[in-house]
Amino acid sequence: MSYTQIKLDIADGIATITLHRPEKMNAFTRVMMQEVIDALDVIDADDSVRAVIVTGHGERAFCAGADLTPEGGGHVFSDPNPVEDLSDERVRDGGGRLVLRLFNSQKPLIGACNGVAVGVGATMQLPFDMRLCSDNARFGFVFARRGITPEAASSWFLPRLVGMQTALEWCMTGRIFDAAEAKDRGLVRSVHPQDELMEAARGLAREIADNTSAVSVAMTRAMLWRLPSEPHPMMAHRIDSRSIYRLSRSADAREGVQSFLEKRAPDYPDTVGANMPDFYPWWDEPGYE
Amino acid sequence: MSYTQIKLDIADGIATITLHRPEKMNAFTRVMMQEVIDALDVIDADDSVRAVIVTGHGERAFCAGADLTPEGGGHVFSDPNPVEDLSDERVRDGGGRLVLRLFNSQKPLIGACNGVAVGVGATMQLPFDMRLCSDNARFGFVFARRGITPEAASSWFLPRLVGMQTALEWCMTGRIFDAAEAKDRGLVRSVHPQDELMEAARGLAREIADNTSAVSVAMTRAMLWRLPSEPHPMMAHRIDSRSIYRLSRSADAREGVQSFLEKRAPDYPDTVGANMPDFYPWWDEPGYE
Amino acid sequence: MSYTQIKLDIADGIATITLHRPEKMNAFTRVMMQEVIDALDVIDADDSVRAVIVTGHGERAFCAGADLTPEGGGHVFSDPNPVEDLSDERVRDGGGRLVLRLFNSQKPLIGACNGVAVGVGATMQLPFDMRLCSDNARFGFVFARRGITPEAASSWFLPRLVGMQTALEWCMTGRIFDAAEAKDRGLVRSVHPQDELMEAARGLAREIADNTSAVSVAMTRAMLWRLPSEPHPMMAHRIDSRSIYRLSRSADAREGVQSFLEKRAPDYPDTVGANMPDFYPWWDEPGYE
Repeated sequence: MSYTQIKLDIADGIATITLHRPEKMNAFTRVMMQEVIDALDVIDADDSVRAVIVTGHGERAFCAGADLTPEGGGHVFSDPNPVEDLSDERVRDGGGRLVLRLFNSQKPLIGACNGVAVGVGATMQLPFDMRLCSDNARFGFVFARRGITPEAASSWFLPRLVGMQTALEWCMTGRIFDAAEAKDRGLVRSVHPQDELMEAARGLAREIADNTSAVSVAMTRAMLWRLPSEPHPMMAHRIDSRSIYRLSRSADAREGVQSFLEKRAPDYPDTVGANMPDFYPWWDEPGYE
Repeated sequence: MSYTQIKLDIADGIATITLHRPEKMNAFTRVMMQEVIDALDVIDADDSVRAVIVTGHGERAFCAGADLTPEGGGHVFSDPNPVEDLSDERVRDGGGRLVLRLFNSQKPLIGACNGVAVGVGATMQLPFDMRLCSDNARFGFVFARRGITPEAASSWFLPRLVGMQTALEWCMTGRIFDAAEAKDRGLVRSVHPQDELMEAARGLAREIADNTSAVSVAMTRAMLWRLPSEPHPMMAHRIDSRSIYRLSRSADAREGVQSFLEKRAPDYPDTVGANMPDFYPWWDEPGYE
Repeated sequence: MSYTQIKLDIADGIATITLHRPEKMNAFTRVMMQEVIDALDVIDADDSVRAVIVTGHGERAFCAGADLTPEGGGHVFSDPNPVEDLSDERVRDGGGRLVLRLFNSQKPLIGACNGVAVGVGATMQLPFDMRLCSDNARFGFVFARRGITPEAASSWFLPRLVGMQTALEWCMTGRIFDAAEAKDRGLVRSVHPQDELMEAARGLAREIADNTSAVSVAMTRAMLWRLPSEPHPMMAHRIDSRSIYRLSRSADAREGVQSFLEKRAPDYPDTVGANMPDFYPWWDEPGYE
């Protein structure tokens, strides 16, 4: 697939997705949504990729929100014949489609927010595992200032990251806030000068790629995003018992222990493509309805 | 309704509820509970109200907890014939009745805690959306020091605001703590000199009233308090897809985008009374049993 | 029961469990698991105990993780005939068995982490109610660096304590981090010089023992760990209404109010052994399957 609104680079075990609409502040469109989803499919199928960085082109914006022009797909809102059945697939929010695909990623997702991120430009970052930003970054969950509401399942994600009080204030005021506030409230893990942002993101990606098992990280990602929603820790015990039981006998576990004892860098043989444990996935994925 | 233990003022789009028992440190009674619930009904039915501030009379106390005298309703505890069936409505905790009504508010709730807040004086603040306090405020989840337990559904609310470790320590020690600790752990968003507290609360209320759509804020409130409890982000996607689909075609969305493009203050025409989307409320409210 | 890998001391209302394998950095074994579980049974059955401190022997390690030697039980991983049915009890993770017993403790659990805590040495601390550590403490959720995954139900516990972003970063990188980072992210409540750690832990235990009702604290522990997982605050209202209704009529409530009014230390008569309210436990405990 040849992309028109994003760039995908894969090198040294790290995939970098760059939102790329230079004249449009990387504003979000249906095409961009489809291209990022496609890139994630490519990445999950490529066992050489150990971590993913998502950033925006340029030094001004990560993503300025939904492009409401006809080019961006915003024309659906002036459709004279809106769908009446709200369970119709055509009703589905594009940001949500993307975010649910990100949620199911088997590779760790690192956000490198290089500037303005408002609307879906902010909410699409919430299912990333770790978020870094540049010191000129600004964020806004601006929906209430546009007469609409939070989307992209952000009502589910945002309180898990910053707690209820901050999530409510950001979404009810719709205000724009800066990198320092994003760090203080826990939205981003670290703030960097613009020209050091990508280096910091790559450093984090390298730390994962160089030291951990791909199967371990894919399992960890699924467990940590899914099991906290269970009503009792027994549900986590059921899954992690199975996981420890199977993976303890894996080639990666042997290499993990051996390299640790020998104080050398590990060289894990197992792959997400071939070696996920037999009980994975353990869940039924709900559909839109 | 004429109130005897609270004051209700509505002006410039902001409703202010003041707990008002001057000689009693605004201690909580069944009458106060009923009056606040009534005021919330008035406020939700009044489309002119865009935000609600809850505070206490005076400079000493927000609310000193439950009034255990006969006047306060505490005499029920010396009832010689206690109810045996614990699903009986008469068993229901008064703080919980109030908190569940606050939970269902359609208007944003801003707490301005002006002094001592212990017992139900602390727990009733947890379903507020944002909490400010004066620098002389003190808080205490003192139940374990009185031989009882947390109430007003605070076991559900408190960990969502301050995390499990802080919630457990505050409730297991029952200690009184000050405004600085409340800010540090995330219970309040900001601390203010006593004589600037109400101005700060009104500033936050104004920010919402002047910039956002009432329908957007009412929907945001319901979504953010309810959807994070769902086991999977798909549930949030189902609701926010419907919300974006309907509200994108609303008069408020047109005004939101138009005023943004014209760089002017918005003048939203839609109201909570007339313009909530057709699928709202999307949930079945559970009853006491 | 005579313990070989832990010490149990009970004095002045405080039980202290010390992980005790001096030459092994207190590494975790099946024997240690069974001994801590037994000690918790002893403690819950002893109404004189009002708080529990868990620490490690020495100044170097709290617990260096699972002992993978045959002595530690690690030989099961080289079992030539692994179990195929993953719902078999033999599949169950030992750290999880311990953590689920800690989860059901009726006494408040205070961790005093006196040094290195990696793997199960870190995850076993998560169901403690409060965690203190020494300034030389180091933590690591190192599983992905060993080719395995988080265990001991830590995927359920860790995000409740430190939020999703920190939990994901710690588990995906598997890195070792220090006491300052543990404090900054909320894993521990306070950091102390090594030689003041136990004094601080005992001070917190004393604060609970001297001021609160044992029945109140046991109820508070169950409510705060269990009710936040409910989908709606009504579930908490159902339980805390019952709790306030029953306990308000208890001898401890009378003593709690009386001692408060008389400004004297309380002397609560009720015990966890004899006076838990009639509806406790209100839940069905799920089993492994």
